[in-house]
Amino acid sequence: MRILGLDPGYAICGFSLVDSFASQLEAVDFGVFRTTAEQPFEERLLSIYTDLCRTIERYRPDVIAIEELFFSRNTTSAIATAEARGVLVLAAAQYELPLFEYKPMQVKLAVTGYGRADKQQVQEMVRILLGLETRPKPDDAADALAVAICQAHTGLTSTHRLRAAYPKRRDPRREDL
Amino acid sequence: MRILGLDPGYAICGFSLVDSFASQLEAVDFGVFRTTAEQPFEERLLSIYTDLCRTIERYRPDVIAIEELFFSRNTTSAIATAEARGVLVLAAAQYELPLFEYKPMQVKLAVTGYGRADKQQVQEMVRILLGLETRPKPDDAADALAVAICQAHTGLTSTHRLRAAYPKRRDPRREDL
Repeated sequence: MRILGLDPGYAICGFSLVDSFASQLEAVDFGVFRTTAEQPFEERLLSIYTDLCRTIERYRPDVIAIEELFFSRNTTSAIATAEARGVLVLAAAQYELPLFEYKPMQVKLAVTGYGRADKQQVQEMVRILLGLETRPKPDDAADALAVAICQAHTGLTSTHRLRAAYPKRRDPRREDL
Repeated sequence: MRILGLDPGYAICGFSLVDSFASQLEAVDFGVFRTTAEQPFEERLLSIYTDLCRTIERYRPDVIAIEELFFSRNTTSAIATAEARGVLVLAAAQYELPLFEYKPMQVKLAVTGYGRADKQQVQEMVRILLGLETRPKPDDAADALAVAICQAHTGLTSTHRLRAAYPKRRDPRREDL
């Protein structure tokens, strides 16, 4: 099964492609979609969306794993990051790809066995688990690899079970605006 | 000039079409895009995006005016609302429509002359300015009409000036994630 991992952002958005088969993991590709502060915000969202669609078309993943956002402060960039995440989620729906969401702590736990692991510990475990020579860079790409590994370790790994489970998923957000 | 006004939301998203000509305003249509809590979140975003694209194709607006989000609390639904706003902004970029963003206080000021006007005051002024027999309902549609009126009153009203100004717009968000 091919997993597309995403670390949402509007200036730098991490992506990863990880193949998972019989508890073996292989990094097919990873990197970042970048936009610049010179672009109007709507063009940044369009650029991220277009980059993601191209990546989906090129690598044809079976499932998308994406980090949940959590913000306690910094509202303006938090809102912009969530807007960028919205266009990633939209692309998943348009390609009819099952989408799984993980909190940062779940990702750390799945990758290192410790929910409060620091960035270096996560990156070193990503390197080991994927058999990479060096720690993946930049941080956003490493985070996208980590969320794909989290999906491989904790998500539903059989396509059959995944398809059966997918229609039953409910929106965990209770409060509607 | 035809203005498409949007009040972002993921359960209810208000839209309005307002024609502005020689300081006269006419409500062409208004209403809401609705999604339900039974839908997976990604399908809700896809539904909102599809409804907006259909509305753009049907009414062919010249410009989009959208409310800025501000949240001081309620992070989960705030993030979901911002994700929905992201797909609205994406559609604006895909149709190459100039996008103008207004804070709620700017909208109230433009519509009523008072930035702290309450919902009833705003809706009554929307009714008067558009020559409607009754106050527009639901609230989200009324808010979308108000942001379109704000655009008509305070935005660039000449297509020529608007086109000239558009490429110079910069992303006001300084802090990149």
